[in-house]
Amino acid sequence: MFQSFDATSNPAQGPHRLAGLRDVMQGEGVNGFLVPRADRHQGEYVAPCDERLAWLTGFTGSAGFAAVLADKAAVFIDGRYRVQVRVQMADVFTPVHWPETGLADWLTDALPQGGVIGYDPWLHTVEEIAGLTKPLTAAGISLRATDNLVDRIWTDRPDRPTAPFFAHPMELTGEAHGAKRSRLTAGADKGAWVITLPDSIAWLLNIRGADIARNPVPQAFAILHHDGTVDLFAPVAKVADLRDHLRPEVTVRDDFDAALAALPGPVRLDPKSCPQAVRDLVKVEVIETQDPCILPKARKTEVEIAGARAAQLRDGAAMVRFLAWLDAEAPTGQLTEIAVVEALEGFRRATNALRDISFETICGAGAHGAIVHYRVTRDTDAPVRPGELLLVDSGGQYVDGTTDITRTVIVGDPLAEHCDRYTRVMQGMIAVSRAQFPRGVAGQHLDALARFPLWVAGLDYDHGTGHGVGSYLSVHEGPAGLSRRSTTPLEPGMILSNEPGYYREGAYGIRIENLMVVTPAPAGPDARDMLAFETLTHVPLDRRLIDAGLLSRAERDWIDRYHADTLHRIAPLVEGAARDWLLAACAPL
Amino acid sequence: MFQSFDATSNPAQGPHRLAGLRDVMQGEGVNGFLVPRADRHQGEYVAPCDERLAWLTGFTGSAGFAAVLADKAAVFIDGRYRVQVRVQMADVFTPVHWPETGLADWLTDALPQGGVIGYDPWLHTVEEIAGLTKPLTAAGISLRATDNLVDRIWTDRPDRPTAPFFAHPMELTGEAHGAKRSRLTAGADKGAWVITLPDSIAWLLNIRGADIARNPVPQAFAILHHDGTVDLFAPVAKVADLRDHLRPEVTVRDDFDAALAALPGPVRLDPKSCPQAVRDLVKVEVIETQDPCILPKARKTEVEIAGARAAQLRDGAAMVRFLAWLDAEAPTGQLTEIAVVEALEGFRRATNALRDISFETICGAGAHGAIVHYRVTRDTDAPVRPGELLLVDSGGQYVDGTTDITRTVIVGDPLAEHCDRYTRVMQGMIAVSRAQFPRGVAGQHLDALARFPLWVAGLDYDHGTGHGVGSYLSVHEGPAGLSRRSTTPLEPGMILSNEPGYYREGAYGIRIENLMVVTPAPAGPDARDMLAFETLTHVPLDRRLIDAGLLSRAERDWIDRYHADTLHRIAPLVEGAARDWLLAACAPL
Repeated sequence: MFQSFDATSNPAQGPHRLAGLRDVMQGEGVNGFLVPRADRHQGEYVAPCDERLAWLTGFTGSAGFAAVLADKAAVFIDGRYRVQVRVQMADVFTPVHWPETGLADWLTDALPQGGVIGYDPWLHTVEEIAGLTKPLTAAGISLRATDNLVDRIWTDRPDRPTAPFFAHPMELTGEAHGAKRSRLTAGADKGAWVITLPDSIAWLLNIRGADIARNPVPQAFAILHHDGTVDLFAPVAKVADLRDHLRPEVTVRDDFDAALAALPGPVRLDPKSCPQAVRDLVKVEVIETQDPCILPKARKTEVEIAGARAAQLRDGAAMVRFLAWLDAEAPTGQLTEIAVVEALEGFRRATNALRDISFETICGAGAHGAIVHYRVTRDTDAPVRPGELLLVDSGGQYVDGTTDITRTVIVGDPLAEHCDRYTRVMQGMIAVSRAQFPRGVAGQHLDALARFPLWVAGLDYDHGTGHGVGSYLSVHEGPAGLSRRSTTPLEPGMILSNEPGYYREGAYGIRIENLMVVTPAPAGPDARDMLAFETLTHVPLDRRLIDAGLLSRAERDWIDRYHADTLHRIAPLVEGAARDWLLAACAPL
Repeated sequence: MFQSFDATSNPAQGPHRLAGLRDVMQGEGVNGFLVPRADRHQGEYVAPCDERLAWLTGFTGSAGFAAVLADKAAVFIDGRYRVQVRVQMADVFTPVHWPETGLADWLTDALPQGGVIGYDPWLHTVEEIAGLTKPLTAAGISLRATDNLVDRIWTDRPDRPTAPFFAHPMELTGEAHGAKRSRLTAGADKGAWVITLPDSIAWLLNIRGADIARNPVPQAFAILHHDGTVDLFAPVAKVADLRDHLRPEVTVRDDFDAALAALPGPVRLDPKSCPQAVRDLVKVEVIETQDPCILPKARKTEVEIAGARAAQLRDGAAMVRFLAWLDAEAPTGQLTEIAVVEALEGFRRATNALRDISFETICGAGAHGAIVHYRVTRDTDAPVRPGELLLVDSGGQYVDGTTDITRTVIVGDPLAEHCDRYTRVMQGMIAVSRAQFPRGVAGQHLDALARFPLWVAGLDYDHGTGHGVGSYLSVHEGPAGLSRRSTTPLEPGMILSNEPGYYREGAYGIRIENLMVVTPAPAGPDARDMLAFETLTHVPLDRRLIDAGLLSRAERDWIDRYHADTLHRIAPLVEGAARDWLLAACAPL
């Protein structure tokens, strides 16, 4: 099993560890210390050795940070984690609603003039430090870069991962790393780019790694020189097998600090992800600009899109086997959330192609479904009861593609309210799926399409409608998305999730999620240059939860076509009871 | 008649006038001169004495500007006017697609280093000049403020308007000007705001004027001092009747230049509308900031909203009489566009409350309907033929409210394509009308709701979905709107148009437009704090053009409720044939 159900933190140790950190702070002469949930590479997942926030506070969410002072200790978390943080965190820490309360405001309220805040400059971005420096300086508070004070007291800290990097071949990428390097540096006649994001390096050099769970990325740094050559900074042992893949234009080195200090200018770095420590080491002119890999990585090649389709068929067949099994077993009332997660992972493993799950499966029965980022543990494991909704959000990492799918099903008979809300969520998902739009449109312009059927009933959901997805990379990938904050225009080849939801706290959660790829739209009567989405995910929706009376003819047609298409694609891949279930599930409305 | 159908420009004079301007340029020692379609107040309409662009070039659109050089003369126009400019403009001028081609780019291509461009600093905003200065300076070209060179050769230039200003009373505004002045200056302890927008001054001082057509604004300048007192700069004769209304805290003066030069700092001005000449006259610290009247003006008071409802009833009854007349007369094939415009104005005048039309009526039969800003003249007047669509976009200025409505009707029998496109446009209009949304949502987030039914068929329209509307002020009023460029969050009290369209060049145009006011949404099951739109316009849609098979139940219900509500409101106000027509037009689908 990839997924574990054990608690990965120990909140009971919180008071003791907090006291230890405060002792170290006093010795260092700082009035506070910042503990982000981040490593040097600013990814969504971190290795166990970088789980400083969870180790200190007990809170294991994928975003957040602590600010520890001598007499106060706050953990800043966004809306996704407000329920989780209340149950999970040691109560010597105070949860603070972020971004409603900003860190700078909180610090200036809590500290007198002359206060000094310590921070580890490898764990904070250039943008974060710049954003803090101005208001803190105005309030007479200073920031001081230190070594990591948590590491001084974390005596049994796990070792760094050692798994080797490996090549991601041309038949899965469609573009050699030499071509990518040439493309990115075309027209440059001096200077270099410092690249600190592992998935950017993975994309640029067509390599993958196993340094952290769920994301097959290599934790490394790279310098892309204007002539297209690259210095790759990683432990030599990890890249031993890659000599032929990389040479001669990519050189493996282990002297990142010295290389930064010796770079000729201008040095381009991305302030949103580059550690402040890197900025501090560069001695020449710096240009702050977006990581040059981010946009080309998001535009998948035809080979990557073909891989995504293949991965979706494989994953879809596993999901169909899983849903058929669930429909047979759940009405007994004997299943629990963990049993469901284990069964689902088993169906994916049976494909013999699963490299990892793409994130911790979210499997929420009844009221747990309303916790948007719920992860079941032995302590929370709930029975799957007839009459309740079950929300399952999961995905797989395959070498040809990363999947992410949410289906919500009813066990037994639904309430009218379940059907009303499910249908509205589905209508939002369908509207996005059907959308065509001119070039220049960004996710911020489309987000309302997904919410409209809920909005008209006075309902909404407190998360974005979709995120970019990597190609055997991170399941959450920038820069494009579908939310009011997504300003990047959509372009052909971008893979996005489409996942509206509805959550009634204490009662149930509904989310429906397909992945889509942006494509040119078919030619219309006016020959406008428009884009469209091709849905990649093909797994039936739960007909028992659809209130057909709410649907327009176009929505009904879309569902019938989607189910016919799903049947056509998946039926050849499943047999027996799963095939029977699929046939019934895909019947026209 | 307010509306005239005469050509208001004389393109045949273009070559002669251009030659005259070039002579003056040479005498002044400049290589070029800019001729914007603007006056000192940057409004959408200008007085005849300020129609320099039309006088010079023949082009009468409401936006655009000319750049005249010794050997080239370009008129920059946006997408709305590309058809009009081709037919209307003297061919010594070259139309340039703006903003695709920027003025600075065009000038740097056309002029050598050392070139000098003259401009009238009263007709260009601070932002325009700043935006030009940087790229021109980089190209070695300089800008030189001069007097207006067009005025030197325009020997029969009309006089400035002399109509007096008048008070707009409390019973129509709901807030006295003293309260507004106090509200805007609360917390300020020094400095002043320079206000150059006539509708801002009209709102702030509860006055109106008759200086330009269609917009009852007073052309004046004002300085709002931090203590809430105001200096109003206008010809004394125009404000003679307003002494009691204004005194004692508003002082009428006529020495604007001297007053600017004597102001203590800081002086706040809006770079998007303030003339560069004003900026040049201020001698102390300047803070560039949005005109402080813009946002409060957009949030209508309860009194203004009640006025809008009353104006809409009156205007709706006139529209119903008009549409009933049109349905009776048009099938004869004897009407022309001008006859339709005259009849419509007649029905509005018959209310005995019409102060002006709120813009030149757009009445386009058949292919003319595809010209988004078509204005019929004696030369273009086309017959209204059976089998064609007729698009009529019009509005009235009443003291209690400004109206703006578009209805598209079929004369005789529609084609299936007419019905398909009309229904999609209407579905977009209905989606916006039904929308509820959380606070923070701006027009850019809602625009796609109006386009979606067209987008899914590969169709679109090349204008925004809606604009703010003034209260007995400008029919186009900022800052909020419904378009991808509208970033101002919507707030209760804002009045917006909702006007999706579809245009097939050479064939027909469809637009449907209602006005709406933003209101708090009714409480939903989750008690979310949401906003909604209340539709203000109540005039039937053309049932003959609705393809009911495309509609969802909710859309059908919306139409039936809208028609029932329209019947309930308007039936008591009309009699005879108009009432019979209304009853039939409002029957359930």
